[in-house]
Amino acid sequence: MAKRAYPLSKVYGLLEPGPVVLLTTRHRGRANVMPMSWHTMMEFEPPLVGCIVSGRNFSFEALTATRQCVLNIPTAELAAQVVGCGNVCGRRVDKFARFALTQAPAATVDAPLIAECYANLECTVADTRLMNRYNFFVLEVKKAWIDPACKAPRTLHHRGRGVFMVAGETITLPSRKK
Amino acid sequence: MAKRAYPLSKVYGLLEPGPVVLLTTRHRGRANVMPMSWHTMMEFEPPLVGCIVSGRNFSFEALTATRQCVLNIPTAELAAQVVGCGNVCGRRVDKFARFALTQAPAATVDAPLIAECYANLECTVADTRLMNRYNFFVLEVKKAWIDPACKAPRTLHHRGRGVFMVAGETITLPSRKK
Repeated sequence: MAKRAYPLSKVYGLLEPGPVVLLTTRHRGRANVMPMSWHTMMEFEPPLVGCIVSGRNFSFEALTATRQCVLNIPTAELAAQVVGCGNVCGRRVDKFARFALTQAPAATVDAPLIAECYANLECTVADTRLMNRYNFFVLEVKKAWIDPACKAPRTLHHRGRGVFMVAGETITLPSRKK
Repeated sequence: MAKRAYPLSKVYGLLEPGPVVLLTTRHRGRANVMPMSWHTMMEFEPPLVGCIVSGRNFSFEALTATRQCVLNIPTAELAAQVVGCGNVCGRRVDKFARFALTQAPAATVDAPLIAECYANLECTVADTRLMNRYNFFVLEVKKAWIDPACKAPRTLHHRGRGVFMVAGETITLPSRKK
């Protein structure tokens, strides 16, 4: 799919609805993928994203060492790969190869974009003050990409233990808020 | 609706998919309601929830003063009230009265449950270390309530500027993870 740059001021609209994201890192030459649902927007622009990456995850080591990652947003077509990436450990398995995910180069960070995801957010670690206590990282989105052909992304929303809600219909109400 | 207590160990499944929540507080005798989409799970049990409450919101004052609140999860039937609560300020408007929302007493905190919401999470403030810099609060869920009749809640997921995705179908995949 052909991606185009997406305004940083609109990134909040991608993450607010709570989609599962795939966090990618590259460390010591190895790329890895971790599904993640524990994230929140923290600021509009530059976009800040808070997220939990457990110390038990292989990605924790990469994120703390390199201080950069990509948040890739998959749609329902990738559900099996999303769950698969959560079921195996990046220490032992090359998840890109195992799940036939395609690496694409990022513009601002040394971590791969997942080509099959409809949106990709290149991030650096901006704050680690709650890392020791909660494994909580504050990320800053440096560059965003989106597939303009994907108008109503069927994002995945984890309800626990492999159950996902798939994004349904969209409604619009008169709002004075961002 | 008749609610029953919900296990704290399962609360993450309510918030992981990223629903809009209505944060309620009571301060100096006044109850208030604030729609919020910037929240994330931070720990399974006891459940910790990180969230942003802007200093511009009337709820910020109540939350910092009382250190307690309720996170109420609405479904699509309440969409107009959710947007309405975001369009007016609790300093000037009694939102419960204006939007015909019903207060119900909480068991562990002095903030109202919204009876019309299918789930309610009674919370206390557990950590304010990132409050000054990001308006970020860590809440601990002390007690949870759910409407057992609501099996497939049509939760609202904000995409920005009054656009909401309504929870769609559910799929289940074999997962080894919580």
